[in-house]
Amino acid sequence: MSGGKRVGIILGSISDIEQAKKAGAILKELEIPFEVTIASAHRTPEDVKNYSEKAMDRDIGVIIAVAGLSAALPGVIAAHTLLPVIGVPVSAGSLGGIDALLSITQMPPGIPVSSVGIDNGRNGALLAARILAISDKTISVRLVEYMEKQSEKVIRSRQEIEDLPPAPANAF
Amino acid sequence: MSGGKRVGIILGSISDIEQAKKAGAILKELEIPFEVTIASAHRTPEDVKNYSEKAMDRDIGVIIAVAGLSAALPGVIAAHTLLPVIGVPVSAGSLGGIDALLSITQMPPGIPVSSVGIDNGRNGALLAARILAISDKTISVRLVEYMEKQSEKVIRSRQEIEDLPPAPANAF
Amino acid sequence: MSGGKRVGIILGSISDIEQAKKAGAILKELEIPFEVTIASAHRTPEDVKNYSEKAMDRDIGVIIAVAGLSAALPGVIAAHTLLPVIGVPVSAGSLGGIDALLSITQMPPGIPVSSVGIDNGRNGALLAARILAISDKTISVRLVEYMEKQSEKVIRSRQEIEDLPPAPANAF
Amino acid sequence: MSGGKRVGIILGSISDIEQAKKAGAILKELEIPFEVTIASAHRTPEDVKNYSEKAMDRDIGVIIAVAGLSAALPGVIAAHTLLPVIGVPVSAGSLGGIDALLSITQMPPGIPVSSVGIDNGRNGALLAARILAISDKTISVRLVEYMEKQSEKVIRSRQEIEDLPPAPANAF
Amino acid sequence: MSGGKRVGIILGSISDIEQAKKAGAILKELEIPFEVTIASAHRTPEDVKNYSEKAMDRDIGVIIAVAGLSAALPGVIAAHTLLPVIGVPVSAGSLGGIDALLSITQMPPGIPVSSVGIDNGRNGALLAARILAISDKTISVRLVEYMEKQSEKVIRSRQEIEDLPPAPANAF
Amino acid sequence: MSGGKRVGIILGSISDIEQAKKAGAILKELEIPFEVTIASAHRTPEDVKNYSEKAMDRDIGVIIAVAGLSAALPGVIAAHTLLPVIGVPVSAGSLGGIDALLSITQMPPGIPVSSVGIDNGRNGALLAARILAISDKTISVRLVEYMEKQSEKVIRSRQEIEDLPPAPANAF
Amino acid sequence: MSGGKRVGIILGSISDIEQAKKAGAILKELEIPFEVTIASAHRTPEDVKNYSEKAMDRDIGVIIAVAGLSAALPGVIAAHTLLPVIGVPVSAGSLGGIDALLSITQMPPGIPVSSVGIDNGRNGALLAARILAISDKTISVRLVEYMEKQSEKVIRSRQEIEDLPPAPANAF
Amino acid sequence: MSGGKRVGIILGSISDIEQAKKAGAILKELEIPFEVTIASAHRTPEDVKNYSEKAMDRDIGVIIAVAGLSAALPGVIAAHTLLPVIGVPVSAGSLGGIDALLSITQMPPGIPVSSVGIDNGRNGALLAARILAISDKTISVRLVEYMEKQSEKVIRSRQEIEDLPPAPANAF
Repeated sequence: MSGGKRVGIILGSISDIEQAKKAGAILKELEIPFEVTIASAHRTPEDVKNYSEKAMDRDIGVIIAVAGLSAALPGVIAAHTLLPVIGVPVSAGSLGGIDALLSITQMPPGIPVSSVGIDNGRNGALLAARILAISDKTISVRLVEYMEKQSEKVIRSRQEIEDLPPAPANAF
Repeated sequence: MSGGKRVGIILGSISDIEQAKKAGAILKELEIPFEVTIASAHRTPEDVKNYSEKAMDRDIGVIIAVAGLSAALPGVIAAHTLLPVIGVPVSAGSLGGIDALLSITQMPPGIPVSSVGIDNGRNGALLAARILAISDKTISVRLVEYMEKQSEKVIRSRQEIEDLPPAPANAF
Repeated sequence: MSGGKRVGIILGSISDIEQAKKAGAILKELEIPFEVTIASAHRTPEDVKNYSEKAMDRDIGVIIAVAGLSAALPGVIAAHTLLPVIGVPVSAGSLGGIDALLSITQMPPGIPVSSVGIDNGRNGALLAARILAISDKTISVRLVEYMEKQSEKVIRSRQEIEDLPPAPANAF
Repeated sequence: MSGGKRVGIILGSISDIEQAKKAGAILKELEIPFEVTIASAHRTPEDVKNYSEKAMDRDIGVIIAVAGLSAALPGVIAAHTLLPVIGVPVSAGSLGGIDALLSITQMPPGIPVSSVGIDNGRNGALLAARILAISDKTISVRLVEYMEKQSEKVIRSRQEIEDLPPAPANAF
Repeated sequence: MSGGKRVGIILGSISDIEQAKKAGAILKELEIPFEVTIASAHRTPEDVKNYSEKAMDRDIGVIIAVAGLSAALPGVIAAHTLLPVIGVPVSAGSLGGIDALLSITQMPPGIPVSSVGIDNGRNGALLAARILAISDKTISVRLVEYMEKQSEKVIRSRQEIEDLPPAPANAF
Repeated sequence: MSGGKRVGIILGSISDIEQAKKAGAILKELEIPFEVTIASAHRTPEDVKNYSEKAMDRDIGVIIAVAGLSAALPGVIAAHTLLPVIGVPVSAGSLGGIDALLSITQMPPGIPVSSVGIDNGRNGALLAARILAISDKTISVRLVEYMEKQSEKVIRSRQEIEDLPPAPANAF
Repeated sequence: MSGGKRVGIILGSISDIEQAKKAGAILKELEIPFEVTIASAHRTPEDVKNYSEKAMDRDIGVIIAVAGLSAALPGVIAAHTLLPVIGVPVSAGSLGGIDALLSITQMPPGIPVSSVGIDNGRNGALLAARILAISDKTISVRLVEYMEKQSEKVIRSRQEIEDLPPAPANAF
Repeated sequence: MSGGKRVGIILGSISDIEQAKKAGAILKELEIPFEVTIASAHRTPEDVKNYSEKAMDRDIGVIIAVAGLSAALPGVIAAHTLLPVIGVPVSAGSLGGIDALLSITQMPPGIPVSSVGIDNGRNGALLAARILAISDKTISVRLVEYMEKQSEKVIRSRQEIEDLPPAPANAF
């Protein structure tokens, strides 16, 4: 339970579904309720507007907007809501996603959008979790667990190194 | 029927045919007559010049020029006709098409070329349609239909999302 | 008189006024009626929507949208009208305008935007003129004159070269 | 009053002070308490660690980290706290800030950092405000006012256009 | 005297004159006859074509083409002559000349253009000299002298270092 | 026979052989004698120096230097000979060859290197041919034939367009 | 034996193991003792700190830090030790490693990190060897042998060129 | 006294002197003997070769090579010595030094060069100091002092923040 707040994930296109799955897996693990939908800043602008304007009243706490290419979606959402909007730039097209990264981050002063890295839906979800955790201690607790698992995974991966001389335990 | 105006699609090389097919599919759907040919700014400059100079009298209304790499074709066409020229930069080579995008857009003041996105022959055709629609209401009507289909496709794609909690209908 | 069609120039911000002036000077010279206004895709999205939706009925034939940074304006306009939209990317910020150029050109297939070069308001106006000239011969005539002046200016500039041996007249 | 939560602004270097001033001005206007300090991920890593680890208990709700060049600061902070961290990349050096933007956004999955645009301390503050507003209605109210002022400023700027024909009021 | 061959320098615009001056100074020093003119691939394409087609018969041996932005000039010249064409990309515009560099180098296979560095008219002239020197020993002799002067200048510059401990003579 | 002058092709590494094959095929077709070898600016600098210094006396007329990554080879060769050096940047590594392109073109004033496009060994050979053709009419004749074949290939490719309406013959 | 000094290789993630293998192969060949481990600047920052602070006392002489994306690892290590740190940027993600290269090199003045090329673990190892060789003649001797083998490999590769006319032996 | 080892600073051109001054100031402060000279990889290649080959016998321990544009100097030095070579890329030209950064880092496997950031002569000197400190405790001691001063400077700079609410002392 996140103080009643859910995360809304909006994809600019069904082709961005991979990032929603990565984000969804994290949110499930953290037991944060979320919903996923598709709405295009250019092809269904009214839906984007409506979704953004109603989100706060529908107990959405954070919106994750996934988009590639000129990636106007996060900014257009941010123009229609006061909720924090997290953009996830996607490496669609031939430029590796630098187009989407710039489109999402380089917003004019006045309408903020926050961006995570290219194709990094996982960090989009974790950022949403941190935001909701400010007023929901149960998320904080689960985030601590999640980060500890991350650390353990790194530490365990040391044993997976094969054919190379490992650093001794007292190196740390 | 587009007021008698057709769209002329010129490829700098046979290897750019994919974009012509994408553009052609849109133009067929919108019932805008068009023709496709190949002429190189560097290997057959006289053909480019002749085609450009005759185009207006041949009832061409807009020219779509598809080119990769240093992509001089759209600019050279624009130098020999008063018709609007739409460049479609192609991601040939190893730089993802940023070379073609810059070559097409960064024209000196005086000779305008308009560019759509890299490998985006579809938008090239839609832009041509919008231009011809200014003086041809029947194209406008078909463009409205086309855009509605686009919107519907986005909305339908919401149902295709699997294994993830969907946003409710009242979210929009 | 351009068949009753005017050019609408929209700036994302007053700081982009320089490009409107450059475009306006060309349009005046070509005797094409135009209007200039400011509306922000992010700060006044309703105005952008309204302007775009009413433009066709207000006898606007082409819209020139000037914007820097993440430059969503041209795409958002194109989502709300069937008129051709010409984006003029501006070199605001520290990246020389490559952010605006990518944001404007890399539109998803379905909603076309045409871009001219960075800070090239002049070519934005000339492109608009070419588009309107398709159905307005008087603009064509003036464009021919304009292009001839351009050529003459280049030729005259040959005489301005000082302290360097000029090519003889028979070189051409 | 923001539910007792303050914003912590950390600069990687005194040379980044300009962004803190821009962010501070917004936060003052929104009546959100904040504090500013300097700590370097590389030159005073212990201070960064301590600040990050204590921040939650000191009623910091969001951290804004301002940094240029390789800009490790936001990521290092995010590694030592569960609070949401907003990076503000600075255009120090000769690459216009693209180095800082990539360093801040391209975090490995697991430790999220959110980035606003280059030199956009204002949006950093507004994003912090949106995050705190989730659980503090008074901030929401002030943000609504702020956004309205932004809109009005855009609308008023229409009158500032000189020597160019304005769009009529019924254009919107 | 270079076997009767002269160097033809063509500028795309009077604003590129600086590079012609740099190139001209080198050619004068090497006593290689040259001429300078202005012709635009887009604004006076016929002049470019005529100049290129007549150049060989006018005893031009190499053409140096200076251009910025989308820089089609060198490629268009190369399409109309068999002479070697040296492009000098100019840092006009806001992208530091990377647009011109890509436009000049990324030619399609079949029509070669050779490029020197951005704003490097001097190397354009030296490359032309090397090309003419293949069949003109007197240029070779002067190039040897020129390169020796270059070396001496580097060596002399060692003495100009002030306030820093110099490497001893036996370091070399 | 090219006035006794041959083309020397030097690869920085055996992995660049593809470009030598492309260049060689052109030179064979043009009946220009050539030789291919491998020498590394960093791993066998003495060989590079010796080859460069002896090349002129060995009746080499032009050197084509193929290299990827930091691509110092063409510049180092140019430092040890007065012959014109043509660099062919290779898209080795993960940056698509932009590293090699910049390394080859951005030479300091004084030592010129000419660059063709990335992976464009064919244009490297054609540029060498144009250079040798200045003093060898037989190469000129074959280059004319080659360019005519290029043009014919473009024209023939028009017939290869399938499923799309072709432009009529009178379009040119 | 390298004066008792070993090389410590740290990976930011198990996915970077390829570079460790390349580096390890070189170090084995040069008989320089080394160890490999994994520690993340963001997921296990304490381990990075501990490893870095203890390294000097554990007779580590140089640290090679391998990391992709925002690649904070080398800089964070350098903040906690006085040992020289060599960063190996990895082409993880969609940007070809330019993100990691900039993150590693563009350190603020005061905390130096040295970078080799993208995915170039081999050069990371060779650089470490050169550093240790300053005070260990036996490494110098093996490095000389290694470099000679490199040269020989280049020279031998000349014979591998097939179907192309080779340069004669007296070319060098 | 650094075990008898000095640092050799080589500039590719007198115009790079600023970086030598920055590096020299650090080395003086650390009491590490050094020398400065100028030698160009392209204009005085023999001097570069001689300097590099003699450096080890002249008790040079590390070479710092400063260069802009295609920046071949560090790599060419590394080809002629076994000493570690530190490249300092300079932002000469119009591309902000990205050309020099890529030229210096993207060396082929086999000849390592280490690069610090663009225009970061200070870090070049500190890296050289760390390398020499491996076998010279007195440098280590001074480096510790230097780093402490760096930390203190950051801490002191907190007091310089004006007109903004400072973080309290217990924040750290």
